[in-house]
Amino acid sequence: MTNSPPVAIDSERLWARHMAAAQLGATAGGGVNRGALTAPDIELHRQLAELAHARSFSILVDDYGNTFFRRAGSDPHALAVVSGSHSDTQPSGGRFDGIFGVLAAFEALEAIDDAGIDTRAPLEVVIWNNEEGERFRPSQMGSAVYTGVAELAPLLAATDDAGRSMDACVQALRSALAYLHVGRRALGEAFAVFVEAHIEQGPILEAARVPIGVVSGIQGTRKFEIEVIGDAAHAGTMPRSGRRDAFVDAIAIVNRLHEMFHDAADEVRFTIGRFDVYPGALAVVPERVWFSVDFRHPDEAVLVALGDALEPAVKAAVRCCEVLVKEPVRARPTQFTDMIANAIIQAADRRGLAWRSIYSGAGHDARYMAAHCPTGMLFIPCDGGISHNERENAQPEHVAAGAQVITDVMLELATRARPSD
Amino acid sequence: MTNSPPVAIDSERLWARHMAAAQLGATAGGGVNRGALTAPDIELHRQLAELAHARSFSILVDDYGNTFFRRAGSDPHALAVVSGSHSDTQPSGGRFDGIFGVLAAFEALEAIDDAGIDTRAPLEVVIWNNEEGERFRPSQMGSAVYTGVAELAPLLAATDDAGRSMDACVQALRSALAYLHVGRRALGEAFAVFVEAHIEQGPILEAARVPIGVVSGIQGTRKFEIEVIGDAAHAGTMPRSGRRDAFVDAIAIVNRLHEMFHDAADEVRFTIGRFDVYPGALAVVPERVWFSVDFRHPDEAVLVALGDALEPAVKAAVRCCEVLVKEPVRARPTQFTDMIANAIIQAADRRGLAWRSIYSGAGHDARYMAAHCPTGMLFIPCDGGISHNERENAQPEHVAAGAQVITDVMLELATRARPSD
Repeated sequence: MTNSPPVAIDSERLWARHMAAAQLGATAGGGVNRGALTAPDIELHRQLAELAHARSFSILVDDYGNTFFRRAGSDPHALAVVSGSHSDTQPSGGRFDGIFGVLAAFEALEAIDDAGIDTRAPLEVVIWNNEEGERFRPSQMGSAVYTGVAELAPLLAATDDAGRSMDACVQALRSALAYLHVGRRALGEAFAVFVEAHIEQGPILEAARVPIGVVSGIQGTRKFEIEVIGDAAHAGTMPRSGRRDAFVDAIAIVNRLHEMFHDAADEVRFTIGRFDVYPGALAVVPERVWFSVDFRHPDEAVLVALGDALEPAVKAAVRCCEVLVKEPVRARPTQFTDMIANAIIQAADRRGLAWRSIYSGAGHDARYMAAHCPTGMLFIPCDGGISHNERENAQPEHVAAGAQVITDVMLELATRARPSD
Repeated sequence: MTNSPPVAIDSERLWARHMAAAQLGATAGGGVNRGALTAPDIELHRQLAELAHARSFSILVDDYGNTFFRRAGSDPHALAVVSGSHSDTQPSGGRFDGIFGVLAAFEALEAIDDAGIDTRAPLEVVIWNNEEGERFRPSQMGSAVYTGVAELAPLLAATDDAGRSMDACVQALRSALAYLHVGRRALGEAFAVFVEAHIEQGPILEAARVPIGVVSGIQGTRKFEIEVIGDAAHAGTMPRSGRRDAFVDAIAIVNRLHEMFHDAADEVRFTIGRFDVYPGALAVVPERVWFSVDFRHPDEAVLVALGDALEPAVKAAVRCCEVLVKEPVRARPTQFTDMIANAIIQAADRRGLAWRSIYSGAGHDARYMAAHCPTGMLFIPCDGGISHNERENAQPEHVAAGAQVITDVMLELATRARPSD
C-alpha cells in the first residue's frame, strides 16, 4: 500500500444526493421509474454534470451516451481509475439500484477534491447508459458498446415502445449538457481499472450482517424471446376445435418450461417477466403471444445443457400454432480479478468494516468491463434483498460504508506508481 | 302482409359504402381498427350524418353518444321502426362486423326515400355506441344504457387506456356533428320494434349455402376479470423459494380453468383474450397479472353451474399470491320474439332467398333491446366464419340480400296499421 492520507467522505451529502435522485422519476409507490435517457434520467445527468462543472471536472460523452466525469491526474500518460454504475431503473424500480454506484463514485471524486489531493492517475465517474435494458432491449448495452461486444449502429437505431430511437435520446442528452462544455469520449478508450459499487439485490449480506460484499464474479445468463403465432377469432362463435389460440399454445409451452427448469436445489433462476398477448381483447381469441425467458446459473455446463434444450422443448410443446425462438443475450459466468478484490478487502480492513466474498446473481456492466481492464465490484446490503421493486431500500450507514471503501480504493489505485502494481 | 310496393335497394351504393367505411381505421393487414368514438369512428358518424342531412332525415344523439337518423312517418303518434348496429370494431377487427347492420339500415331508409314512399311509422337507423367494449369495457354498453340496464354516469366517467373519458368522446362526437343540426334523443325513448342485421361470425350459413339466418336467440355470457397480486423481485437474485411470482400463480389458475371448462362436446366457449403482466420487464419477477375470462353457453343451467364454480377454483389454484375475482358482465340466454322472425322469413320468401333459423354465439345490442321492444336479428354468412380478425370478409351478394330483407321488413312494419299487428 502507498501512504496516501485518509480521505473521509461526506455521508450526509451522499445520502441527500440519493434522496434528490429518487425524486427524478419518482413513482406513487415510493419507487423510481427512470428509463434510460428519459427526461428524468437526462435531468439527473444534467444535475451531476453541473456539480462536476463547478469543480472543473471534465464532462465527456461517448457515441452511445455513456457519460464520464473526469478529475485530472498529475501523470499525463496515466490511464483513468474509473468507478460508476448506471442511473436508469426498471419501470417498478427502487431508489438505489444503479444510482448508488454512480453517487458513491461521484462522492469519491468530491471527497478527494475537497481534501485537495493530487492523484497520479486521473479519476473518473461513469454513468453507463441503458443498463436495465427495458426502454431499449437488451440490458448492459452501454458497457457492451463501449467494449466492442455490441455494435453501435443497430443499438443507436433501436427504438422504444413509442418509436423514439436511442440516437435521438443521445442527442437529447448532448443538447441538455451542451452549455457545460461537453467533450467527446472515444468508445473503447483504455482504463487503468474499473470498480463498480452496487446494492446486492439479494439477502446474503443483510443476513450475515456484513456491510461490504467483495464480488468474486457474476453468474452466466441466457435470455430467450418466444413468439407464438395463431389466428384471431370471435370468442363467442368459434368452437375450440376450430381455434388456433396462441394463448393456449403459449400456456402449453410455459408449462413445459416450468417443468424443465424446475430445480429442487433452487439454484436455477428462471423468470418469465414479460408476456404480451395480441390483440389483447376480451372477446377475441389471441392471435399472437410474445414472451421472454430470463435464465441464469453460475455454472456454464448447466447454462449449456438446459439452455440448449429450451428450443426443442418449446417446439415439442406447441400444438397448432407456429413458434419462433430467439436468443438475443448469452453471457458466460464472469470471474473478476483478485487485484481489485484485494484492494477492496484492504480498504475495508483499514476502515474496520466487515466484508465477505459474494457471487452476483444479477448482471452488471462490470461483466463486459472485465474483458476490457482489471475489474471488480463491491456490494452493500439492501433491505430484505428486495430489488427491481418500489420497496427497494438501503441503510444510510451501508451506503456510506460502500462509498468510503470505493473512495479509498480509487485513491489507492490512482496514487500507486502504476495501477497494476 | 300489407301491400306496400316492392322497393329495390341499390346494391352497388351499399357495397361502395362498405368499402369507404373500411378506409376509416384501416389496418395494414386489410382489417379495421376503429375503437368507439375514436377519430375514424367519429368521422364515420359524420359522413353518414351528412348523407342523412342531405335527405332531410333528422339526426339525434343521446347522452351516451348513440346516434339515430330518422325519416319521419305520416302518423305523428307512431313509434319508430328501428334498425342498425354498431360502427366500432375490435383492435384487429374486420370490414363487416357491426358496420354492415348500420349500412343495411341506412340503405333501407335511402331506398325507401328514393322510391318516394311515405310510411306510417317513422324509420330510424341507429349506431349503438361502444358495442365492442374494447376501448371502454364492457361491451354493448350503448344499448345497455339506452334500455336502463346500465347506469349512464359511471359509463360516461369511464376512461380508455390513454385516460380519455367517454364523456369527452361523446362531446367530441357532438362537436363534429354540430354543423348538421343535431337533436337530442332521450335515453329509453320507446321504439315500435328493433331489428339488427349482422354477419354471422360463425361458419353455419356459409356451410349450408344459405344467405339469410333468422336469429332465434343469443347465448348467455359471463365475463370475469381475475387479478393476481404478488411481489416484484430481481430475476437474477431472488431464488424461486423466496418469490411471490404473480405470473406463476396466474398460470396455475389458467391450468385449472382450462381443465374445468374443457368440454368434449365443444359447446362451451371459454376464452382468455387479455392477459396483462406487470411490470412486464424481462428481468423482473412479475408483481401483478390481470386477465379476462369470456365464458358463453346457450344453456343457463351450464352458465350457472360452471360460472359459479370459477371463483372457488381460482382461489384453490393460487399458491402464494393474493387473487381478486370480478364478474362485470352476466347475461342470460336471450330468446327473440317470433313477430320479427316471421317478418324476416316472409320477406326472404317473397324475395326467393333461402333462410334458416340460427342461434347466435356472439353478443349483440339486440340482447338488451329484446327487453325494451319486440326485437329480432338477421344474419348473413361471412367467409369461413372468421370474425374479430383482419381477414373477416363477406360476399357482396349476401350483403345485398341481407340489406334487401331489412328494407322489406322495415317497410312492412312501418306500413302496418300498428306495428304489433
